[in-house]
Amino acid sequence: MINLRNDYCYIAHPKVLENMQKSASDINVGYGLDKHSVRAKELIRKELGTRENDIHFLVGGTITNKVFISHVLKPYEAVISCDTGHINVHETGAITNKILTVPNVNGKITAQGIKEVLSQHTDEHMVKPKMVYISNSTEYGSIYTLKELQEISKVCKENNLIFFIDGARLGTALTSSYNDVEMKDLPTLCDAFYIGGTKNGALLGEALVINNLELSKDFRYSIKHYGGMYSKGFVAGIQFETLFENNLFYEIARKENELGQYLESELKRINIEIYMKAETNQIFILIDETKVDDIQKEISCEVFGKVDNKAIIRFVTHYLLEKEDIDSAISVIKSVNK
Amino acid sequence: MINLRNDYCYIAHPKVLENMQKSASDINVGYGLDKHSVRAKELIRKELGTRENDIHFLVGGTITNKVFISHVLKPYEAVISCDTGHINVHETGAITNKILTVPNVNGKITAQGIKEVLSQHTDEHMVKPKMVYISNSTEYGSIYTLKELQEISKVCKENNLIFFIDGARLGTALTSSYNDVEMKDLPTLCDAFYIGGTKNGALLGEALVINNLELSKDFRYSIKHYGGMYSKGFVAGIQFETLFENNLFYEIARKENELGQYLESELKRINIEIYMKAETNQIFILIDETKVDDIQKEISCEVFGKVDNKAIIRFVTHYLLEKEDIDSAISVIKSVNK
Amino acid sequence: MINLRNDYCYIAHPKVLENMQKSASDINVGYGLDKHSVRAKELIRKELGTRENDIHFLVGGTITNKVFISHVLKPYEAVISCDTGHINVHETGAITNKILTVPNVNGKITAQGIKEVLSQHTDEHMVKPKMVYISNSTEYGSIYTLKELQEISKVCKENNLIFFIDGARLGTALTSSYNDVEMKDLPTLCDAFYIGGTKNGALLGEALVINNLELSKDFRYSIKHYGGMYSKGFVAGIQFETLFENNLFYEIARKENELGQYLESELKRINIEIYMKAETNQIFILIDETKVDDIQKEISCEVFGKVDNKAIIRFVTHYLLEKEDIDSAISVIKSVNK
Amino acid sequence: MINLRNDYCYIAHPKVLENMQKSASDINVGYGLDKHSVRAKELIRKELGTRENDIHFLVGGTITNKVFISHVLKPYEAVISCDTGHINVHETGAITNKILTVPNVNGKITAQGIKEVLSQHTDEHMVKPKMVYISNSTEYGSIYTLKELQEISKVCKENNLIFFIDGARLGTALTSSYNDVEMKDLPTLCDAFYIGGTKNGALLGEALVINNLELSKDFRYSIKHYGGMYSKGFVAGIQFETLFENNLFYEIARKENELGQYLESELKRINIEIYMKAETNQIFILIDETKVDDIQKEISCEVFGKVDNKAIIRFVTHYLLEKEDIDSAISVIKSVNK
Repeated sequence: MINLRNDYCYIAHPKVLENMQKSASDINVGYGLDKHSVRAKELIRKELGTRENDIHFLVGGTITNKVFISHVLKPYEAVISCDTGHINVHETGAITNKILTVPNVNGKITAQGIKEVLSQHTDEHMVKPKMVYISNSTEYGSIYTLKELQEISKVCKENNLIFFIDGARLGTALTSSYNDVEMKDLPTLCDAFYIGGTKNGALLGEALVINNLELSKDFRYSIKHYGGMYSKGFVAGIQFETLFENNLFYEIARKENELGQYLESELKRINIEIYMKAETNQIFILIDETKVDDIQKEISCEVFGKVDNKAIIRFVTHYLLEKEDIDSAISVIKSVNK
Repeated sequence: MINLRNDYCYIAHPKVLENMQKSASDINVGYGLDKHSVRAKELIRKELGTRENDIHFLVGGTITNKVFISHVLKPYEAVISCDTGHINVHETGAITNKILTVPNVNGKITAQGIKEVLSQHTDEHMVKPKMVYISNSTEYGSIYTLKELQEISKVCKENNLIFFIDGARLGTALTSSYNDVEMKDLPTLCDAFYIGGTKNGALLGEALVINNLELSKDFRYSIKHYGGMYSKGFVAGIQFETLFENNLFYEIARKENELGQYLESELKRINIEIYMKAETNQIFILIDETKVDDIQKEISCEVFGKVDNKAIIRFVTHYLLEKEDIDSAISVIKSVNK
Repeated sequence: MINLRNDYCYIAHPKVLENMQKSASDINVGYGLDKHSVRAKELIRKELGTRENDIHFLVGGTITNKVFISHVLKPYEAVISCDTGHINVHETGAITNKILTVPNVNGKITAQGIKEVLSQHTDEHMVKPKMVYISNSTEYGSIYTLKELQEISKVCKENNLIFFIDGARLGTALTSSYNDVEMKDLPTLCDAFYIGGTKNGALLGEALVINNLELSKDFRYSIKHYGGMYSKGFVAGIQFETLFENNLFYEIARKENELGQYLESELKRINIEIYMKAETNQIFILIDETKVDDIQKEISCEVFGKVDNKAIIRFVTHYLLEKEDIDSAISVIKSVNK
Repeated sequence: MINLRNDYCYIAHPKVLENMQKSASDINVGYGLDKHSVRAKELIRKELGTRENDIHFLVGGTITNKVFISHVLKPYEAVISCDTGHINVHETGAITNKILTVPNVNGKITAQGIKEVLSQHTDEHMVKPKMVYISNSTEYGSIYTLKELQEISKVCKENNLIFFIDGARLGTALTSSYNDVEMKDLPTLCDAFYIGGTKNGALLGEALVINNLELSKDFRYSIKHYGGMYSKGFVAGIQFETLFENNLFYEIARKENELGQYLESELKRINIEIYMKAETNQIFILIDETKVDDIQKEISCEVFGKVDNKAIIRFVTHYLLEKEDIDSAISVIKSVNK
């Protein structure tokens, strides 16, 4: 079975496990106040070219979104998101603030869509839009250009909206061959974002970076209140230290993207219909519904929906794969599709 | 510096890390549906002598309490807990249901205390008591006897109350020299409990066991909704597999208790006042407030409160300590206290 | 100024105030347990041809929706509603459960729309659809036919969904000349609905009727918990007694509909574009945006949105209006529109 | 049957109903933006000797507490209240923020009690105390002296706590013969308070006065979000206009207090044991449990608890009572107690 199901199917990058082993007999302070966490934050700040962000390590993506959004919004305030946004579809209502959706364009929100939502919400009988949420890379593997981010950022500033970027797959966005955004750009573009570890070589853990310090007051209270406080915070610390020590974070993401791009080009070569242009490590194809079972017999992958009588299948490339695995997958698909 | 601050100060038991290394290049299904999680549950069920409990691995104690309590209670229902209960004091309001407190007796709730709360809550202008929450071992290191648990269980059954045991330190309770409760007793005593991993050799993770299957309907929806769903669930699976493979779980806890008992006897020997009889690995002493600084210069430990002009200091023994560390701690305390 | 802004612009029907005066020196039991409330419930049950519904009087529409929906749904469960549903648009996020929207057809939800939502929500990574919410008459003045309600009811039963009807304007639905539904049909069609008083002659108050008694366990606890418990419950009791004593409830609604229909026919006569066919007392027109100010100088009314460069204006007829007021309004509009 | 059960047993003061009748055919703007509400607010501001408070009319006490407290506190922040506080005991968990209780002294909180709670809550593993809540008059009919309020106010200011006064029975506090506080004192003493209408002659309604304008931003959004927005806000407006037009508010409360004081002195005369000194219209007595039934045969009243084998009975005097009713009650009690 070739695994193209997701990029969180293995424990962690070997280097991460190795560094844990090394520290196995160390005594650490709890709750993220340890020296590994401190150093990991310094390494991240170095990447960002800043000094004063408030950085917190949380266990996973949903709890990160939930804690941050709940911390900064009042219950009557709303988040503007793509209809395809992770918080809107795949978090089982974890965000209890209303999510005002904008139709996605290639998996992305547009400045224009945001403005339309704003124009419709004008008084206290409706929720008050207060945040824009995007994912980069998106749930459909696409990425935002610097210009797009700047436009969204501008609309947010003009309308007093908090701009929050879900970076569960930020690594693949920043290392995509289509990308023109740098890590250093993020502090000025948005109020907060997170750097996903779980889908980028860590055992688990996301690094939330709050750029707008007005939003971070008492944040540790919210982490604890919502159940997101790690007693062994140093476990996250060691991992992010490892990821940002020698560019390992980017190296992992880059490999995943390369495999993804290779897979897309090969799929095109054998005339498989691409559902949405692949810019990172997620590739969506359209294939006759009747062929899904045969594919899934040999390739582990997910069906994301359907268009007419065609299934949308998602393939995700990850660190443990090699080019040969892609070749095998292509053989399978070719043979099923003939 | 001798570390007697807590039992979650090191990454994980070496055996846990070793097993992770072994599985480093395996591909796993996500969200706790992997083979390691399945096997870990089987091992736990074997311990329990049951077949049908619903077992879920969650990331930490607070989120486990929050998800379970929120899942089974309606917002107008209340939890009865000791005034010293972890959910009442140390979880930053994570439980939004009202917590009705009962004065503790040696860190423990009593059947009589529960009955008094029940007699005071009689109509819809007050919350409806619906759950009894206890910790075993307790926040003060004491443990419940089988008879005590049976009495609480009886009150719960007679009054249609859910009985939930927070087992963040269940290992030390079950291996205490004062204990007469077996793991096998728990399924018939309570509706649900959890087996703490974080404070018992795991990197992180708690195993929630729901005995009353009426309470477990749709439970995975709640885990996800509250942000407690692990995408790499197999990380917890491997850990609990390791802990319950060769009795490692008990071995770790037993060592912690032995060190705790040794520490208590040595403290008595040098005439230090014991605040509450130590039955597990947490030892609370009373000492002149003016001496706290000197102790903390050489021993990492927490001040839990004060009684008159005496400080309550908590010492916690853990797996990485040896008898010599306790001896060193005793020397320090003796010298400070002379 | 002619008031066509809404149907809750006057204190109460004179008969309601008269009956309050009569009872002014009576002593009553609180919290809805008084004899007026008991009798009002009997009168309502007589209308329904049932004996065993659980009936509760609440203060207003939003709190009724909030208490009922929160009482019967778990936080991870979702409501299916029209995109134009009151809970979706005009209640400032009062419902914290996720609302899954279906595009409206003439202001109404369709059985087909419900089925599509169901087919998209299949596992615990998404919310679990558990309720269908509709308003009758709708937010756009349209009404459901018996056949439509039966179809929705069928889908709900087949899929274990709770069917809840917001009846803030139920009176105008049941007395519309287009209507073929009777009050007596509701208990078998849906699990719960409410009979709006505020917009139908009462000072304030809605009568929630829970047909499915499994849903009503402990309901008074939820009313109190969410702040919806009236200490002077008898105030609602007297009002609903009055409304259902001599068919006053229907008389008020019928007059409002007749005025509404007269207004619509006159608007058509002077060639004003009707936005949506008016079946009750809400009439929506399309008019050149530039003319809105001139209309609002003489007619109090609300702008609901726009289509291209035309404004959608809502006119609502109410009990205090007479035919002459409609004639005056028509004169104004005619003169502005010429 | 003599009614001493509560002070919300009758519809409204005749003057209130009369003014409603007068306005019966008026057309009003909705949601509290009408001229009656505007004038009522002016009358209240005149009482307060201020100009800039933010005043909102809400339907009842619980929803007022819930909306205000939820609006100003973050979920991890806590309210400090007496153990006997209404929000702590009698609101079915409506406040989901943690309530940190202080043992009452004669039904009242003390500055010292507040300081102790503060000293125990020091880091993010516990909730953050952020508000002091008191009721005046209290749940036990006692009242705060100016000095006591000043002391609490001082502690609040020194510790950055919001000071909120539940005035469900503010009228009886301000007109008590023991009182030395004026309405004019409240704006400088506390951040917010409410003037209870429901228990003071109104049909229903409470006037929330927010003195600290930093707390009132977007407050109408919260009112709507929690379901407390009145569509017919003018109904409250007319009532508060009436209550503050000719000192009717104080007249009603003063009569209730006088009857209460008369009842207390008569109870003492016939040697009934007073549970807590009565300063307003609530009188608590201790009487042999076996005699409760006989009393309740002729007097409608509530049992509040027990002390040893004596029942605590609450008598409440209200506007519809006359001295003769008190005399009759005394005869009953005397005869039962002989």
